[in-house]
Amino acid sequence: MVEYRQLDTEKAKSFCEALFQAYGFSLDESRTITKALIRADLYGIESHGIQRLIRYHGEITSGQVDVKAKPQIVHETGISAVIDANKAMGQLAAVQAMELAIKKARNTGCGMVTVRNSNHYGIASYYTEMAAAEDLIGVCMTNTEAICVPTFGSQAMTGTNALALAMPAEPFTFSYDASTTVVPRGTLEVFRKNGTPLPDQWALDANGKPCTDAAVVIDNIIAKSGGGINPLGGIGVTNGGHKGYGLSIIVDLFSAVLSGGLTSNYVNRKAGLNGICHCFMAIDYGIFGDNKAGIKANMSKFLQELRDSKKAEGQSRIYTHGEKEAEMMAKRINSQIPVNVKTLEEMQNIARSFKLAELSLLSP
Amino acid sequence: MVEYRQLDTEKAKSFCEALFQAYGFSLDESRTITKALIRADLYGIESHGIQRLIRYHGEITSGQVDVKAKPQIVHETGISAVIDANKAMGQLAAVQAMELAIKKARNTGCGMVTVRNSNHYGIASYYTEMAAAEDLIGVCMTNTEAICVPTFGSQAMTGTNALALAMPAEPFTFSYDASTTVVPRGTLEVFRKNGTPLPDQWALDANGKPCTDAAVVIDNIIAKSGGGINPLGGIGVTNGGHKGYGLSIIVDLFSAVLSGGLTSNYVNRKAGLNGICHCFMAIDYGIFGDNKAGIKANMSKFLQELRDSKKAEGQSRIYTHGEKEAEMMAKRINSQIPVNVKTLEEMQNIARSFKLAELSLLSP
Repeated sequence: MVEYRQLDTEKAKSFCEALFQAYGFSLDESRTITKALIRADLYGIESHGIQRLIRYHGEITSGQVDVKAKPQIVHETGISAVIDANKAMGQLAAVQAMELAIKKARNTGCGMVTVRNSNHYGIASYYTEMAAAEDLIGVCMTNTEAICVPTFGSQAMTGTNALALAMPAEPFTFSYDASTTVVPRGTLEVFRKNGTPLPDQWALDANGKPCTDAAVVIDNIIAKSGGGINPLGGIGVTNGGHKGYGLSIIVDLFSAVLSGGLTSNYVNRKAGLNGICHCFMAIDYGIFGDNKAGIKANMSKFLQELRDSKKAEGQSRIYTHGEKEAEMMAKRINSQIPVNVKTLEEMQNIARSFKLAELSLLSP
Repeated sequence: MVEYRQLDTEKAKSFCEALFQAYGFSLDESRTITKALIRADLYGIESHGIQRLIRYHGEITSGQVDVKAKPQIVHETGISAVIDANKAMGQLAAVQAMELAIKKARNTGCGMVTVRNSNHYGIASYYTEMAAAEDLIGVCMTNTEAICVPTFGSQAMTGTNALALAMPAEPFTFSYDASTTVVPRGTLEVFRKNGTPLPDQWALDANGKPCTDAAVVIDNIIAKSGGGINPLGGIGVTNGGHKGYGLSIIVDLFSAVLSGGLTSNYVNRKAGLNGICHCFMAIDYGIFGDNKAGIKANMSKFLQELRDSKKAEGQSRIYTHGEKEAEMMAKRINSQIPVNVKTLEEMQNIARSFKLAELSLLSP
């Protein structure tokens, strides 16, 4: 079993900010990256929280992430822009892109910004909720290195290709953020650690046959030797796998094709082809009626009706998207976040290599 | 087994055009509805083809569809509009809305038009491909009467809620068009007719338990007595059912909430609450770069790479979305479409009641 230690949220923040400055990011940049990273832990999405520091450390020290990069607008219209991230930290490119989309939405009702040559940006909902905080609909997509096998295929061709959308509502924002695969790769890692067989709709071996051994699937993905994860809907077409496959193509269209960047099947970190791509949209829903508060109220009402609808036998609660995260954040924000002790050890090693005074913050 | 008769495509068209005029639609309107309807048969999507005449006959004669209705713009900006369909035939409201979205996209780069108080509009890809034919990205969504049960629920709350997107590409348009449920209701009807048990991820009984009896599920949906179809991803969260559930909410947001119309859980044809809602978007992908042909070429290349990727053992072909339909249409357009003999009989009865001369066209 994985062991956890509770870490003061404020201490975790200070540590991350100090670490990112040690890498050479400005104070402002360090705060931006940290905010996005810690938000994942506050939401209970450990896979995208500070445990990513380990991966980021490798990417920053190897030069995959360029600490000095300034993302650059390479094409622009009143409602759109294309940004070349120039290998910047994903969070920095993403915040800049969504801010630009929001500005355009305020001016014209709609802003769409695509980004190429970027890096991992953490949780997509961080950016869609930036738009929601400005009373706009936020949409966000990103491709990744290929992990997802097309329907009837045996070779990973599209990425995790998550799609996120946030719409303002009371008592909390509707915030959808999900991969277009059955599960993301991180979930397979958990099954490998625990030695548990995978459900049979999740993954394929190198021949495109169902495979329940997480280690085999992950090793094949890393070695690019065939197989991978099924699209949402699972294997074949019986449960709609071709629908998830299509959604993953749509994400690659909006992020990679519309930014002039690499589609998932070309991203290859080992070969130095890192540049993943994103897409950010902000839509002022006031373009659909003068009574904007009324539109928001209708959304809130619909979501409440879903939560209030009749439960399945044995179930006590129906959620709407963003609800679990909002509840978790309320609990953790002025308190503590749980961190895997192994992650903590690795963080301490990294801190030591930078002779960071904040190292002590991580001590019990 | 269901018996089929081959019908000349041109004869089927003439018959439909004559029938719609007999209902009171203008020649132009009759041609528009017929074109959308026959397209489904040409694409091999029988469920949305001329077999719908039977359902439309009921809706037109009962007044659910108002033959004299003129859809009306009730709110408009440079990039958006809201249309009240006033109970018009869905195809007429949809064509008008997409034409408006296309016009706005030509002027500003993007057009978004929502529609309320409408009716069934046939296949969504007919409208997204109108945009693609103008070298634009087309997006289309519609809600329906509730058939889909939220994750952990036991009551249908959202509709089939199909999402469609078309992007120009060679040698054929990428055209995605799929429900956000595991399967649409029509597929359950086929299983009922054949007496075959449903796959276990498809549907729930009135208590929210898996149910493989198509008749029970359909009867419950019609009587609104609980249960229904699972969202894409299936029951619970194991295979991502919460993702399909979220996508169905997004479709209701864009079609119903942003048009001020009825969300799926309020649509109730028996109670006279018919007004379903749609959303149409057209995006000029030239807003993402001056070399529009280059962007299209990149999309075509990506799609070709998907089709060319390694097949699963026992599979000979990987498709991209729109491919099967394009192939089927090439075969049928100057030839014949298969029509269920029972549908044909019902069509003949309807024609007889109007004393239509075109009735003879249906004879062998």
